[in-house]
Amino acid sequence: MRLHIPIQVRWADLDAYGHVNNAAMLTLLEEARVHGFWADQDKGDDQGPRVFQGGPDSDTFTLIARQEIEYLVPIPHHREPIEVEMWVGKLGGASLDVCYEIFSPAGQSPRELYTRATTVIVLVDSTSMRPRKMNEAERAELEKFIEEPIQFNRR
Amino acid sequence: MRLHIPIQVRWADLDAYGHVNNAAMLTLLEEARVHGFWADQDKGDDQGPRVFQGGPDSDTFTLIARQEIEYLVPIPHHREPIEVEMWVGKLGGASLDVCYEIFSPAGQSPRELYTRATTVIVLVDSTSMRPRKMNEAERAELEKFIEEPIQFNRR
Amino acid sequence: MRLHIPIQVRWADLDAYGHVNNAAMLTLLEEARVHGFWADQDKGDDQGPRVFQGGPDSDTFTLIARQEIEYLVPIPHHREPIEVEMWVGKLGGASLDVCYEIFSPAGQSPRELYTRATTVIVLVDSTSMRPRKMNEAERAELEKFIEEPIQFNRR
Amino acid sequence: MRLHIPIQVRWADLDAYGHVNNAAMLTLLEEARVHGFWADQDKGDDQGPRVFQGGPDSDTFTLIARQEIEYLVPIPHHREPIEVEMWVGKLGGASLDVCYEIFSPAGQSPRELYTRATTVIVLVDSTSMRPRKMNEAERAELEKFIEEPIQFNRR
Repeated sequence: MRLHIPIQVRWADLDAYGHVNNAAMLTLLEEARVHGFWADQDKGDDQGPRVFQGGPDSDTFTLIARQEIEYLVPIPHHREPIEVEMWVGKLGGASLDVCYEIFSPAGQSPRELYTRATTVIVLVDSTSMRPRKMNEAERAELEKFIEEPIQFNRR
Repeated sequence: MRLHIPIQVRWADLDAYGHVNNAAMLTLLEEARVHGFWADQDKGDDQGPRVFQGGPDSDTFTLIARQEIEYLVPIPHHREPIEVEMWVGKLGGASLDVCYEIFSPAGQSPRELYTRATTVIVLVDSTSMRPRKMNEAERAELEKFIEEPIQFNRR
Repeated sequence: MRLHIPIQVRWADLDAYGHVNNAAMLTLLEEARVHGFWADQDKGDDQGPRVFQGGPDSDTFTLIARQEIEYLVPIPHHREPIEVEMWVGKLGGASLDVCYEIFSPAGQSPRELYTRATTVIVLVDSTSMRPRKMNEAERAELEKFIEEPIQFNRR
Repeated sequence: MRLHIPIQVRWADLDAYGHVNNAAMLTLLEEARVHGFWADQDKGDDQGPRVFQGGPDSDTFTLIARQEIEYLVPIPHHREPIEVEMWVGKLGGASLDVCYEIFSPAGQSPRELYTRATTVIVLVDSTSMRPRKMNEAERAELEKFIEEPIQFNRR
């Protein structure tokens, strides 16, 4: 199962060519993770597992260990949010691979695939500052979102 | 031969944990490329091939096709510029792989390797908007900077 | 009449204290202007005057001449968009003052006023690169949004 | 006495018009403050008062209460650092006005004044989270840098 997360591109994300800057892409992916995966004090009426808490006060924080991004088509400015499909490509002991495909805004046709990416996330205990095992509840939540990992074209 | 490029980390690059944000890393790599690889009207007394012009008026622009980043150690704020080693990992017909290792500021010991990364860059003709072959002069300049490409740990 | 524009704060907008960075505030205001004031090819079903076109190909571009920002309360991360109220504080010959008040997300109580700001915008002709007079259509559109300008506290 | 602080503009600071984005300007000012005013563990061979410590662990943090920026000339990309002149325009009980003039890179002629700005900073006690009085040592350091405050043109 994939999460479908609308993310608003900002004017400030554009480079001197009028396209989303390559570095801004990681900020868009970060936003997708924050909206899809982070628990918070709110009612929690969103879709998504919300297994990780955000912020410096949490007892677990997440460390980015690796990222891979394939830029297929330059992303122009859109008034409407672009659509990020996000899923779990692999579930390790203390880490997970998050996969993304970034598409043109929902409802626009033809639908365009702009970018594909994978982020390897490690769970870290805030006290010991060492990787910690995912617990059963987290694993059960995340397993619902497992799909085939991305096979990147150019290697 | 590797280029050694000092890059200043900004306070604004830090995230809520006090480390360079994962997305800011790509901006640091972009700065390294701008300083190492771009020609300009200046006297050109810098090191580096300076084969590509920057800016929207250039007849060639460079497109980022792929990036891979391995985050080994979180980067704290430094008053002194951190050091980016940059070289060419592979030279294709219309593309090149740029490799980077990001280290602690020059002169600090022990020297720490923070991050390793590769960017695949495609040369695009500004008029036809299609990839264009690297010419002999560009190739000759870039060949001086060829070294072994990075082998990433986690795949 | 004021425009009410929801703007999503990003995780990357936060500084090392967990609040929206002072510099990111101007990016939020820019987003409010883009959503409220810029015409585009879309159906245009939004509220707002949409008098200015965006992008480098437009025959007019807008130059920021001055900005003033008063930070009243630090803005924490919100999952829901914060609300920017935006209006025209003054209409000059070739320029306008845009005023903003940034509030907590719509529907949250008590409602909090975080920030007040004013931006002075000059219309510039893309060909001559000189300020150009606002035309009647633009003026008529913008006049609907005139309200009292902000009186800043500390001077 | 003014501090003269070289600040490197980044490619990512440029907007779609090829000039430093209005919002990025505040990040450049922030960098000037970090380099000029913050104490650190290093040898401290820099110029500047270095009265304030940085980072979330400090017993004082600084809050931005107000900023005013006048954009005189668009800033293009420069390989060399632009020069920020920074001084104290006013010293209050628990606050200070920092003034800046941003110039073209040192040594380029004619020298151009791009931007003028003022930031009002409040000292806040990290424990009580309330403004705290500047102490004698801080005041003595800062008084050396007092000059006439900026008189902004358009009000």
